[in-house]
Amino acid sequence: MIRVDLSEAQITHLKTLTSGSVSTVESVLDQHGRDESAHPPVRPSAVVTVQTTDDVSKVLKYCNGEGIPVTAFGAGTSLEGHVLPIAGGISLDMTEMNKILDIRPDDLLVRVEPGVHRMALNEKLSTHGLFFSVDPGADATLGGMAATGAAGTTTVRYGSMRENVLALTCVLADGTVITVGRETRKLSAGFDLTRLIVGSEGTLAVITELTLRVFGIPEKMAAAVVGFPTLKAGVEAATAVVKMGISVARCEFLDATCIKYVNSFANLNLKETPTLFFEFHGSPQGVEEDAQSVKEIIAEFGGSDFEWTTDETARRKLWRARHDAYWASISANPGKRGVSTDMAVPLSKLAEAVTVCEKIISSHDYLYTILGHVADGNFHCLILTDPNHPEELEEILEVSRSMVREIIAMGGTCTGEHGIGLGKIEALVEETGDGAVEVMRRIKKVLDPQLILNPGKIFIS
Amino acid sequence: MIRVDLSEAQITHLKTLTSGSVSTVESVLDQHGRDESAHPPVRPSAVVTVQTTDDVSKVLKYCNGEGIPVTAFGAGTSLEGHVLPIAGGISLDMTEMNKILDIRPDDLLVRVEPGVHRMALNEKLSTHGLFFSVDPGADATLGGMAATGAAGTTTVRYGSMRENVLALTCVLADGTVITVGRETRKLSAGFDLTRLIVGSEGTLAVITELTLRVFGIPEKMAAAVVGFPTLKAGVEAATAVVKMGISVARCEFLDATCIKYVNSFANLNLKETPTLFFEFHGSPQGVEEDAQSVKEIIAEFGGSDFEWTTDETARRKLWRARHDAYWASISANPGKRGVSTDMAVPLSKLAEAVTVCEKIISSHDYLYTILGHVADGNFHCLILTDPNHPEELEEILEVSRSMVREIIAMGGTCTGEHGIGLGKIEALVEETGDGAVEVMRRIKKVLDPQLILNPGKIFIS
Repeated sequence: MIRVDLSEAQITHLKTLTSGSVSTVESVLDQHGRDESAHPPVRPSAVVTVQTTDDVSKVLKYCNGEGIPVTAFGAGTSLEGHVLPIAGGISLDMTEMNKILDIRPDDLLVRVEPGVHRMALNEKLSTHGLFFSVDPGADATLGGMAATGAAGTTTVRYGSMRENVLALTCVLADGTVITVGRETRKLSAGFDLTRLIVGSEGTLAVITELTLRVFGIPEKMAAAVVGFPTLKAGVEAATAVVKMGISVARCEFLDATCIKYVNSFANLNLKETPTLFFEFHGSPQGVEEDAQSVKEIIAEFGGSDFEWTTDETARRKLWRARHDAYWASISANPGKRGVSTDMAVPLSKLAEAVTVCEKIISSHDYLYTILGHVADGNFHCLILTDPNHPEELEEILEVSRSMVREIIAMGGTCTGEHGIGLGKIEALVEETGDGAVEVMRRIKKVLDPQLILNPGKIFIS
Repeated sequence: MIRVDLSEAQITHLKTLTSGSVSTVESVLDQHGRDESAHPPVRPSAVVTVQTTDDVSKVLKYCNGEGIPVTAFGAGTSLEGHVLPIAGGISLDMTEMNKILDIRPDDLLVRVEPGVHRMALNEKLSTHGLFFSVDPGADATLGGMAATGAAGTTTVRYGSMRENVLALTCVLADGTVITVGRETRKLSAGFDLTRLIVGSEGTLAVITELTLRVFGIPEKMAAAVVGFPTLKAGVEAATAVVKMGISVARCEFLDATCIKYVNSFANLNLKETPTLFFEFHGSPQGVEEDAQSVKEIIAEFGGSDFEWTTDETARRKLWRARHDAYWASISANPGKRGVSTDMAVPLSKLAEAVTVCEKIISSHDYLYTILGHVADGNFHCLILTDPNHPEELEEILEVSRSMVREIIAMGGTCTGEHGIGLGKIEALVEETGDGAVEVMRRIKKVLDPQLILNPGKIFIS
């Protein structure tokens, strides 16, 4: 991919178009040239910070005319290289657009700017008895979460960004501002452009405002932890719970190694065995009934030591530990970096899929953990690599590609929640076929004919 | 719009392309030239029945070359003129593609052909302890339901077609067959083409196979009926229930007139007052707790005579009556036809919206009922017209447009579930703006450059 570097004149002109700053300071370029993926960093030519939709419109219109690539940047927590400006050009920093515009408890919705972080939103919402449900591990921005179609541990109950973004204001490549979706819970008015833009990874438009669905904090929340003799038994127990239609709010699997790391990092003392974490939301009796039903089912799969708590501090500590699993793994192995795979399969294939993947990884010498949102059939292998040995990374990526091929062959997907980004462009074609990718490419081209928006992601244009 | 009529040679050639029949028999043309909307019938030039994806591909490829409009036809139950071939050409009859291909209880999904009717699917599913949740009143085909993004009384709990279609096989205008989506519950692989095609009203592709999410039949189901002194009180009670986060599976509003018609049609003896129908799904105690919570809330809004049943026959009878509300209204007024409006607003605006609409309708002399999926902020006004006085229809459509303008002004949508079709093309522009409609138009043009797929629907190309 040809790299575009900006001229002094272009940088000077960009400064007249935004209320925010334009920077070419090296540390700023560095900060905008990396994310949490294993892909090597790439600096943008400049970082343009925007403060309003109008700023974004003016900057995009100019970049479109000049053929300058534009890659939007939020928290930089992508695991698939989404924010890496591999064609140079500008990194469009959205973090100063961080206002919560409106909280509407009576409509169970909020309006926010794209730079608002999910934890900050939830802190504000909690004072209204509300919460925003989508929880990837990282404290991502809501704009980034919408752009990548993020999901998390509560998706099994409350859905991903695809279900929770009601409406968007966004700017097309030529600077046109459009609004899509509506503040209503149901909508059947024309093509579903909201869902087209959610998950398009910044390649179709830059999101400048979001209307999100929120939920009332449930009357009762309870968590449970249960250990299993084998990885397969734990996964099979989780799928059995889903099949019985029991309403779980969370159902997460962690393998024995992951539990070991988490114990050490979060100061817990869970038994170091394949483990399921559950959460139940509802009325006090409903929650208790659900937990009881789960307890009965998992016993059939050798689940033991079913520990149950409605204590809020213990519950929070447990889920904080689950969200910190990545950092716990790094902390237990100082100096390493993690490569996180992300695959999903139909429920009935989950135990087989996890077993196949473990066989593939364990035939190599890397440290790894397996964990995932098993009630959704979605799981991750976190493989640890030494950044001082870059040849490892290439081998690990080949291991990941082997797993993806097996998963696609059994009807699964190469990504349940992290997206295609840079590393799964070929896997997407393998999974969905040339025809569907060509449709994506044609839609991209008609909305962004100069191909300035996040070039090189999802497919080769 | 210029009408295309087929030559004898074209009809003869089409017969070589499909395994099904090609008909120009007048009664067949008539049957494919009308739906359940108030739009006047329009005959296609020919009806082409297809039996396989390959048939559809060959027929579309030929029509694309010849510039012949193609309008897919399923059950003909559209309320917005979707199946009317207003540009002539062929009606593509999908009803012989009616096989249930695969029922996978372990994956909670099914694969079906587009001509399968929802009730037939549910009959088959019930023997596996499963059900498909989306229930528009009519016994529509699943292909038609996906194409129009259908919803129904259970959408509040289980979602609409947008949430329940996992994957599609479809044929583009030039005959290219693509598959979109995946059999997994989570998917983040490229643009969400599944949701782009769902709700595109047959203007982007013809659906030839669907993978749908299904649910286990809940352990316990219970229904409740409660009357209110005023329409406003009933609507406010419903929104209060949603705001409290109580898990209702259904929550439907019927005004006093509608109850009168339903009583007579379904042989019920409900009190003729504004009424809410509820349904609860879950564990036995959970259902009881939910019902109790609802009972307490509605009492604050003057709700009385809370009648509750877990008897399966009574429950089914109640919901059959709700689904037959349209026919009950016609039956009570022989010779009339109904024009159904379809609007949705943010929850907090619902009582105001319904009140405003009632004020507008009641200033005219038409019989009407108001009913709706109020927990979703979605409601319908069914206005009765005498087909022998066609001037009434024009006036009723103007009444409908007045209501839509008010609803859009208060942040609502011109359609929560029926779609744009023929009658709301201007309302769509008013609601979402020229910019977003232009994006839809560009996507249409790049996927269907000859504009053969269901021309004249959603927007003017």
